[in-house]
Amino acid sequence: MEIRFAVNVRPKPGILDPQGRAVEGSLGHLGISGVGEVRVGRRIELTVTADDEASARAVVDRLAAELLSNPLIEAYDVEVLEGASSLMSTRA
Amino acid sequence: MEIRFAVNVRPKPGILDPQGRAVEGSLGHLGISGVGEVRVGRRIELTVTADDEASARAVVDRLAAELLSNPLIEAYDVEVLEGASSLMSTRA
Repeated sequence: MEIRFAVNVRPKPGILDPQGRAVEGSLGHLGISGVGEVRVGRRIELTVTADDEASARAVVDRLAAELLSNPLIEAYDVEVLEGASSLMSTRA
Repeated sequence: MEIRFAVNVRPKPGILDPQGRAVEGSLGHLGISGVGEVRVGRRIELTVTADDEASARAVVDRLAAELLSNPLIEAYDVEVLEGASSLMSTRA
């Protein structure tokens, strides 16, 4: 079976986030107020072919921990994107 | 009210994604197979203070289109992260 996942990677609490600060610094120029706590991370979407969802999720967890994030300074979560085949045709 | 949102930004279909290709190129070194269609984008999480959810979402849409993404080459979607105040304490 094919499952499409998303891995969301974000700076851990307390870790400096210069991109988030840059976004906050630009809000005034756009005349936008009321926005705060901006954190900028990465989102990786990928398709896994495996025998079952548990095996596919194990692959994604390993990828997320070893390749897609730096566990010293970043945290991640994994989403299953439902309807993998249709999502692929519109997003891939 | 305060609402926490996530903005997911990804390369549009057909747009070159060198980070996605780099991830795919690293899979063999990790001994991982069955992973494909890798797309690497950004995920921005932020808190908006507004009178209602519609106003808050309008602010996020403007930010996403004008500051957080490049509409020529990137697409975005907006998620409402439920339970904003508890999420902030664990994630911010």
